Parts: sequence; structure tokens; C-alpha cells
Amino acid sequence: MLNFKQMPRPVSNRPSGSELGFGKNVTTQGRMMNTDGTFNVHRERLTIWDNTYFYLVTMPWWQFLGLVLTCFVMANCFFGLVYYFIGVEHLDGIEHGALMHNFTQAYFFSSQTLTTVGYGHVSPIGLTANIVASFESFLGLVLFALISSLLYGRFSRPVAKIVFSENLLVAPYQGGLGLMFRMGNARKSELIETEVQVVVAINQTVESGEVVRSFFPLPLERSKVSFFSLSWTIVHPLDENSPLNGFTEEDLRASNAEFLILVKGVDEANQQQVHTRHSYIGEEVIWNARFKPVIGHTPKGLPHVHTQKMGAYEAL
Amino acid sequence: MLNFKQMPRPVSNRPSGSELGFGKNVTTQGRMMNTDGTFNVHRERLTIWDNTYFYLVTMPWWQFLGLVLTCFVMANCFFGLVYYFIGVEHLDGIEHGALMHNFTQAYFFSSQTLTTVGYGHVSPIGLTANIVASFESFLGLVLFALISSLLYGRFSRPVAKIVFSENLLVAPYQGGLGLMFRMGNARKSELIETEVQVVVAINQTVESGEVVRSFFPLPLERSKVSFFSLSWTIVHPLDENSPLNGFTEEDLRASNAEFLILVKGVDEANQQQVHTRHSYIGEEVIWNARFKPVIGHTPKGLPHVHTQKMGAYEAL
Amino acid sequence: MLNFKQMPRPVSNRPSGSELGFGKNVTTQGRMMNTDGTFNVHRERLTIWDNTYFYLVTMPWWQFLGLVLTCFVMANCFFGLVYYFIGVEHLDGIEHGALMHNFTQAYFFSSQTLTTVGYGHVSPIGLTANIVASFESFLGLVLFALISSLLYGRFSRPVAKIVFSENLLVAPYQGGLGLMFRMGNARKSELIETEVQVVVAINQTVESGEVVRSFFPLPLERSKVSFFSLSWTIVHPLDENSPLNGFTEEDLRASNAEFLILVKGVDEANQQQVHTRHSYIGEEVIWNARFKPVIGHTPKGLPHVHTQKMGAYEAL
Amino acid sequence: MLNFKQMPRPVSNRPSGSELGFGKNVTTQGRMMNTDGTFNVHRERLTIWDNTYFYLVTMPWWQFLGLVLTCFVMANCFFGLVYYFIGVEHLDGIEHGALMHNFTQAYFFSSQTLTTVGYGHVSPIGLTANIVASFESFLGLVLFALISSLLYGRFSRPVAKIVFSENLLVAPYQGGLGLMFRMGNARKSELIETEVQVVVAINQTVESGEVVRSFFPLPLERSKVSFFSLSWTIVHPLDENSPLNGFTEEDLRASNAEFLILVKGVDEANQQQVHTRHSYIGEEVIWNARFKPVIGHTPKGLPHVHTQKMGAYEAL
Repeated sequence: MLNFKQMPRPVSNRPSGSELGFGKNVTTQGRMMNTDGTFNVHRERLTIWDNTYFYLVTMPWWQFLGLVLTCFVMANCFFGLVYYFIGVEHLDGIEHGALMHNFTQAYFFSSQTLTTVGYGHVSPIGLTANIVASFESFLGLVLFALISSLLYGRFSRPVAKIVFSENLLVAPYQGGLGLMFRMGNARKSELIETEVQVVVAINQTVESGEVVRSFFPLPLERSKVSFFSLSWTIVHPLDENSPLNGFTEEDLRASNAEFLILVKGVDEANQQQVHTRHSYIGEEVIWNARFKPVIGHTPKGLPHVHTQKMGAYEAL
Repeated sequence: MLNFKQMPRPVSNRPSGSELGFGKNVTTQGRMMNTDGTFNVHRERLTIWDNTYFYLVTMPWWQFLGLVLTCFVMANCFFGLVYYFIGVEHLDGIEHGALMHNFTQAYFFSSQTLTTVGYGHVSPIGLTANIVASFESFLGLVLFALISSLLYGRFSRPVAKIVFSENLLVAPYQGGLGLMFRMGNARKSELIETEVQVVVAINQTVESGEVVRSFFPLPLERSKVSFFSLSWTIVHPLDENSPLNGFTEEDLRASNAEFLILVKGVDEANQQQVHTRHSYIGEEVIWNARFKPVIGHTPKGLPHVHTQKMGAYEAL
Repeated sequence: MLNFKQMPRPVSNRPSGSELGFGKNVTTQGRMMNTDGTFNVHRERLTIWDNTYFYLVTMPWWQFLGLVLTCFVMANCFFGLVYYFIGVEHLDGIEHGALMHNFTQAYFFSSQTLTTVGYGHVSPIGLTANIVASFESFLGLVLFALISSLLYGRFSRPVAKIVFSENLLVAPYQGGLGLMFRMGNARKSELIETEVQVVVAINQTVESGEVVRSFFPLPLERSKVSFFSLSWTIVHPLDENSPLNGFTEEDLRASNAEFLILVKGVDEANQQQVHTRHSYIGEEVIWNARFKPVIGHTPKGLPHVHTQKMGAYEAL
Repeated sequence: MLNFKQMPRPVSNRPSGSELGFGKNVTTQGRMMNTDGTFNVHRERLTIWDNTYFYLVTMPWWQFLGLVLTCFVMANCFFGLVYYFIGVEHLDGIEHGALMHNFTQAYFFSSQTLTTVGYGHVSPIGLTANIVASFESFLGLVLFALISSLLYGRFSRPVAKIVFSENLLVAPYQGGLGLMFRMGNARKSELIETEVQVVVAINQTVESGEVVRSFFPLPLERSKVSFFSLSWTIVHPLDENSPLNGFTEEDLRASNAEFLILVKGVDEANQQQVHTRHSYIGEEVIWNARFKPVIGHTPKGLPHVHTQKMGAYEAL
């Protein structure tokens, strides 16, 4: 748990690792946050259904569509077996045959019922088969209502697509030095009222000699913009207000520094708020370098951002 | 009605029970708020439809699916009867038989029409049967559009899944005492920009000798965090700023204290704001105890929260 | 256009009618805002489609369902005519007959195609009929996708159901007088973080002798509550800070006063923000009266609000 | 990137073009923002799918419906070919004939399967045809679930419909001059809590002699209103606080000025936040003119805004 608003200046003599919910003993070498913004934590699930919706709307498309298709095939296998055990003689229009032939016929009848296509060259006879078919067609409609819901949930879930530079640079900034990273908006839609927060986590030796992990918000040259159209270089001035003031390259690595980036904005496409996270570790900081220009022009003279070169820099 | 912002310090000489909409005479022994965050109040409904959507999206899944299935069966019974009274001779393909046989045939034809599976081995003949079938298939599509809407309403409704410790503890805090509870995030998705407000309701004897129920917001060590990943211990320091300063264990019980917790945050899964409530009563406060650590590590070394042990404490 | 935030104290010597977008000459006797919160204005529509979605999600349910049914019947009439002119001999399975008989058969075939029930006892033959049927079944699915969308839009549209007292009262308040109205939450779901703003519109004679309509925000005893559960009495103290300080009953009527109420909150059912408006005119102000208690108890002892008696008052 | 909040007064000696993400060399003659609020920039797309949802919900209706119909026809052509190559003898009920005849029969069977209308006068025989038909009917339901989702995405996407005056006027304002534009709400639904921000971009010659493009927020007489019902005239006073103080008509053109307008509000129809942008260039500024009244009355006496005359002005 980290609170930027209420922690306006560095509190260097108080271990705050527990406030992120990681406990004081998390002086791990690994990243706390992955570069895709997910945390390296493990959460117990309370019930099997708790995170189902979250998984279903965030899994990759091929997984989602594969899962839906698998469910469809398995539902047909199940109902195919049910019709098979009821007896294919209760499915009018089927040519009786070998066991496998009968099952595939029942399977296809199930498929025609579940999708409500219902050609009708096969139709149920008798009470049991009719009840099952009635329930299956009902289930089919509910299942496809479910798929509609999930599809909309996937589409409408606001997600920013922000490209971060691969490195943090320490570059000249207004007579002194500044810690900088660059990010670009890779979507067609503008990101409105974009806000950035940066927190650094470092290992510190407290009075008792114990090594604890502390968190400091880093003041930024600019933390909010009205709209984020092409690219934006975020600068933390390394001056007397910086908790990293006086740090050398070795200090950063020795303290096992990790920079946590939080970006918040309103996606123009659906006018909803989106949050994105990113992280840099000490090894990803380049000293004495500056970003190369990332904005060019198209043949028609329109400003153009080279998204792939977001992290391009030159040594000084 | 309770206003935290506008009631920044305790107003001990003014009864404010009426501001919560409960009236001054609510000096009840029972809880005002249940542990699931619902209020122990009864509201008149104005029309039968007023809260329908709320019930339909908040009822348990088995109730919802059972209700939908019941509606489906009853609609088919209704239309089955209609076809029966029109006369089964207007349903081409039906083998005429006993009364019950005819009705079940009509029922299944209705089911095939409502789900639009329409096998076609039975089909309507004549104006009346055709009009009814046309209307029923139209109704079927509208009803399943309705189910789609409700399913999406259920899925997309932002709900936080927060586990609260079973008890409030009075534990040592920065040289003095603090009132503490712990909560954990039981979802896979992060809860961003989480805010907590705590209000205590106690019985007070006013100048006139009357006992009134008063409400005091409790200042917190920290009331907002940027993201709520694993667990968070919320602390109200029992110092001179606390309306409960100097209260003993007996005082708390005698005043029939109830602690109302309000949690607000943005659910990462759909980027929408969620609100959760919880309540503790005086009997649930443990004096001189502290929470046991709740964060461990998985075999792979990832931080891990034991959600079931959120309330684990040890006496001091 | 009215800005409460930027107009913190009454600006009595500046006509601000134009800021509400009504122009200075709107010194009308009628209400500016209806009691249901809509404005008495007329807006030109730019294109016929501009407000379609707004109408479709806000019209009463019986109108909406009637409209959908009408569209269904008219679409079937249209396609029925198309099949009729193509020739019913291209619909296999139809018994040819009189003109009207043929059309109704074509109508029912259209209905079976549009709803995709497709029994199949009638089926298209030949290129033209097949193309039309293929297009119609496609259109059917798009139309019912449209109905799904609109149904969800209707359901998920956040609407508060707030009951306002029929009158504004001028009642004793803290040694002086206060202007009060009461409102109750008629929904099962709580209204969280509810905020109220009140503005009064009165006719004023400016220096030039011209009568203009001016707008003043009214400071409230309390303008925000954390949750709005049962009932809330909103009080504007008639003290030296009030633009209505010293007004008599006659002054209020003579100045053609209208009180505009804006309520904002978060509906717990879907966690979305809702806005509600209400208005009182001078004739609806009762002097020297106070509200009767509106909260009772159910037989089980639960607090209970008599929603129908929200406006009950007694003369003093 | 432009930050109004953090740039409260003009910073005339610091080039800030790069902060909009355009680079310092964007001293182009053309508009930076089009009058419909889109930017004249070109963004590389990372993957082909990145902006798909954005395009699908923002393209004109005729394009969207045309695209859906095209997909439907092409899917049927594809599956028609598949059935053709499997062999039309596996489609029971088809009259065999010439190559083209067979294909069209297969095409129509595909259409009946994809829409799940499934008349059944044609039905699949054999394993291969059945598997394809089963998959196609499944695909059909998924595709129409997709269309439902997109339709709802299109409907529910909050879009303001604001009409801007064609020109910016320099008109007398409170003894001095003011830069004014007028906008009207062309929707039936109110726009609640509307906020306006105005930024001017001008070419400036910096100390080094280089011409850079600088951005200045313009203070407004009023920047927020509680609701935006009919029309609103936004005024930037050309006084000593204005970065344009002392500019003549020639100065504005010479500096290649562009005014960027950002409007934010809550659309009452779905209670969601909407953002709209607009831009004026120096050539669109009219000096010494004032807006004609835009509000009239309907025959019934209701205030009425002439949306088409939003920009009507008269020279002074």
C-alpha cells in the first residue's frame, strides 16, 4: 500500500515496506512489479469463482475463443451421450447404425439444438428426449447470452496501450541532472487528463542494523497533462528535493532500487478511466545519456511518433 | 446520513443520530449495519418494479438461474395451454392422443418456438396458431435479449471482495495505543486508490438526561493508498484527537459502540469505482492484542497473503 | 448555465439570467424546471438521429416494448409483401389460395425467418426468394442485437429514485429561521456520497429599471453526506449569509421565486454516478411549519421510512 | 501534452512545444487540431488489432452496417465454397444442377446455418458436412454476440453534441475587450458540470532567434457551469492577465495562432463523462463584433435556441 498524496516528502527514517503489503522481509533481489504492471505476489483464492470474470475478460483472445469452442464441443459431447443413452430411436430422422455412428448423429443433433439452428431433419420423439432438447435449447441461449456479455466485457474494458522506453536515463536537466523516462501513446484514441506517479523502492539500513525496504515518491517536473497525444518525457529532477540526491550508479544498484510507475488517464474511445503500471530496476538506469528525438514527419507533413524507437538514446 | 468531510472534529454536544436517517430513538442494542455492509433498515417500496433490477443483479447465481429457468418453464406452460385451446389439430406433425399427451406436445412446440430452435417436425397451421407462434418467437428473442442484459449487468457490476479481520484490536502504537483492523484483497485484480473512512456510533447522555446516539469520524494513521495489493492494517491512534480517548473496555460496551467502515476504490478488472462496507460492535474489540503476520512466501519466493488468517492475533 | 463553485456569494447587482442559457427576457411566470427535473425549454434538433438513443432508453417501458413490437410487425408486413410480389410459388410448402391467404402465409414465413425460428415447413425456392430470406434472417439477428443493446442501456442507466417533500418549509432553525425540504431514498440500494446544491431564481429590478431574472446559490447547513439511506432534511439557514435574508412571504411570490435542486450521488446498485433535479416555486413554500417525523419502526424493530409521508408537516 | 492546472500563468520565455508531443520544429502553417477535435498527427500502429475496437465504435453507421453485411456475405461465400468442395451430395434436399446452381444452393444453406434460421429443407449428411455445419452455427452465434457487443459499444459511448460558433469574436467586455466564442448543446439531454479549457498556441522568437511554438492557457470569465442547457458564451478577458494582451489582428495572424478548446461534462443520458474538442485559427477571429441573440421563444412561450445561428454576429 503506497500513498503518494499523504507522503509528500521522503520519510527516510521509517521503514514503509509493510505499507505496500509485502512485509519488511521483502528485500528480494527480484522485481516487485513486472514490466507489464502485474505484481510478483501470490494471492490465495477464497472460492473458485472469485476471479473467474477477471480471468475471462483479461485472457488473450485465442485462449478465450479456444475456451468457448471447447465448452461448445464438450457440451455437445455431454448432451450427445445423454441422447445416446435415452436411445437414438427417440431421435426421429436418424439412420440407425453402429455405436459410433449413432453417437455422432446424437452429437450433431445436440449441436443443432444448442445453437438453435434446428434444421429439423432430426427431431426428438417422446417425453424424455423432448425434455432434454427443450432444456438444451434453453441452455444454449443462456450460454450465448453469456458469451455476448463476456465479449462486451472484453471490448469495453478500458485498457491503455502505452509504450515505455526500455531504460531510465540520467541526463542533464536545467543545470543539474534529471532522471527521465519516455512513454508513447500507441492507440489511435487520445489519453485525456493523464497523470503519472513515480515511487522508488530501495533497501535501507535502519538504526538497528536491519535492512528494510523503503518507498519514496519522486517529485516530477510535470505530473499531469491535459491530453497525451504522441510522446511524453517524464523528468524527476535529481536536486535537493530528491530522495536519490547524491546517489551514484553503484548506490542505486547496491540499494536494489526499483522504480514503480503509475499512469492514470481517460481513454477517449469509451471515456473511461484507465490505469497502467510499469517498473524499472537499477540495472535499467543509463547514466549520462539522453533520448534521441522520437517525433518525425510523414511525407504529408503530419507529426509522427516512432513508437518502436521510444527508448532510443545516445551516450553523452 | 453521515458526512465525514464536513464533520472534521468530534461534535460531542450535538446529537447527530438523525443525520444518519435513523432518528434519535435508535438506541437499539442490535447492529445498525450488518457485517456484509447492508443496513438494518426497512424501506417502503413505491412500486413493485422499483428495485427489480437491483434484486436481479445482486441475487445469488443459483437463484438467478433458477428464476430464469422457472420463467422459461412457465412461459412454455402458458403458451402450451394456448396452443392446446386453439386445438392441437392446428399444429401440423403432432400425433393426436390423450389430453396430457396433446398438452406435452403443445408444450414442446412452444419450447421450440420460444428458443427459436424450430425443428419444424411440428409447425403451426391456420391464422390463430401462426399469430401466436409468431408472437411467441418474437417474445423469445426479447426475453433472451433481457437475459443477456441481466447477465452483463451481473458480470460488470463492480464488486470488491475484501476480507476483514474478525476483530478490532487495541494494540500498542507509537508509544500509545491504537485501534486497528486488518483487511485483505481477495481478488486477483488490484484495488487502486483505495480510501477508508471509519465512523463510530455511541450512546451518549445529553444535558437533558436523554440518551442519544452520536456519530464521530475517527482520524486514521493513513486513509488512502495508491493500490491495495495484499493486506492493509488500518490504525486509528487512541490519542488526544480521538473521540474515544480515555475509553475503557467497559465504556465501549456500555456505550453500545458500533464502528462503521467504508472502503472505496477502483477495481482494476473493469476500472470502475467500488464501495464496500463493514461494521464492528463493541463486543468484537480485543484489548491488548496484536495481529500475527499474514504475509508469507510461496515455495517460489513470491509474497503471499493468508487470506483465511486475516484476523489472526496474539494476546500481549 | 449556473456555476455554484465559482459564484460563492450572491452577486445581486449583476443579471445572470443569460448564464443559465435562457436570456435576460425570461421573466416568465411559469416554472423554469418541472418537478421531474426536466427543463421547460425547446431545443432544435440538428438531425433526426441526434436524440434517438436518449429517447429509446428514457421512454416508458410500455412505449418501448410497444415500439419494438410495432417494428416487428411492420418488418414482417414489408417482407411479407416482398415475398408476395416475388410470388408465393417460390415459398415451398405454402398452400396457394386467395390473395389474402397468400399474403398471410408470406407474412408468417417472414416472421419465422426474422426470428430465425425457421420451422422449415415453408422454405424459399429460387435465387430471389433465397437472397431475400438470407438478408432477412441477417437483419433479424442485427435487430435483436439492437434490442439487446437497448435493453441493457435501459437497465444500466443509473437513475436515482428520490422522493421530495411536496413543499419547502420555513421553520425555526437554531434560534432563527431555516428554509427546509426533505427527501427520501425510495430504492433498495444506498445512494453513496450524496451531494445537494440549491439555487434560487428571482426577478430583480436592476438600476436601469429593467426586470431581470437573477440566480443565487443558497448555502446549506450540510451539503454532502457519505450515504443516503432513509431520509434527509436539507436546511438553508435564513441568516445574514442568505440572499433571501429579510424576504417575506409576499416578497417570495412577488419575485416569482423558483428553487432549483440538484442532487448527485453514487448508486450502489451499479456504482455509477446519478444526478436528479427538482424544483419548488414560491407558492410551494409553507411559512411557520415543521416536518412531522417520517421514520418509524417495523414490527421487528427495524427503522422504517414512510416514503408517502415525506412531505407531511404541521403548522406552528 | 498540455497541462492547464500546472501552468497557471504564461511562461513566455520557455518553449513548450515539445510538451504537446509535437517537437519544437512544429511551426507549421496548418492546423494542429481539426475542427472536429481530432489531431493532425500520425501514429504508428503496433499491431493490426490495436485500434480495431476504436474504429468499430467510431466509424459512421452506414460504414459499420455495410462492414457487418460484407462480413456476412463473405462468410457465406467461404462456407458455401467449403460445402461445395465437400460435395453438394452431402447436403440433403438440394437439387443437383450446374456448378453455379450448386454453389448458390450451398451458399444459401450456409446462410441458413450462420443465422441459425435452419429451415431444414436442406440438411447436412455425413461426418464432414455435419462438423462444418456445427462449427458454422457456433461461429454464427459468436459473430452475432460480437455484433451485439459492438452495437452496445456504439450506443453507450458517451458523445457530446456541441455546436460551436464558426468564429472567435473580439468584442467589448466590461470596459475592455474580450475574446469570445459561443457553443450550444444540440442534444435533448443536459450536459451536467460542464468545464471549458482554452489554450492558445503561437509562434514565438526565442533569444537564440529560433522560432518555437509556445502554448498558453487562457483565463476565462467562467470555466465551469452546473448544467449546460441551451447556449453558453465563453469569454477570455483581454486584460493584463492575458498572454495575448496588446496583440493586434496582425499579431495574431503573424504568430500563426491556434486556439484549442477542451470541453468536459457529464451526459445526462447515461450519466457518463464526455470530452469534446474544438479549434480556431487566427483567420477565424473577427475583430469588433458581437454575437446576435440566439435564444428565442417557441409559440408556446418556451425558451428556444437557434442551433444553426450559434455563430451569428454583427459588426460594431
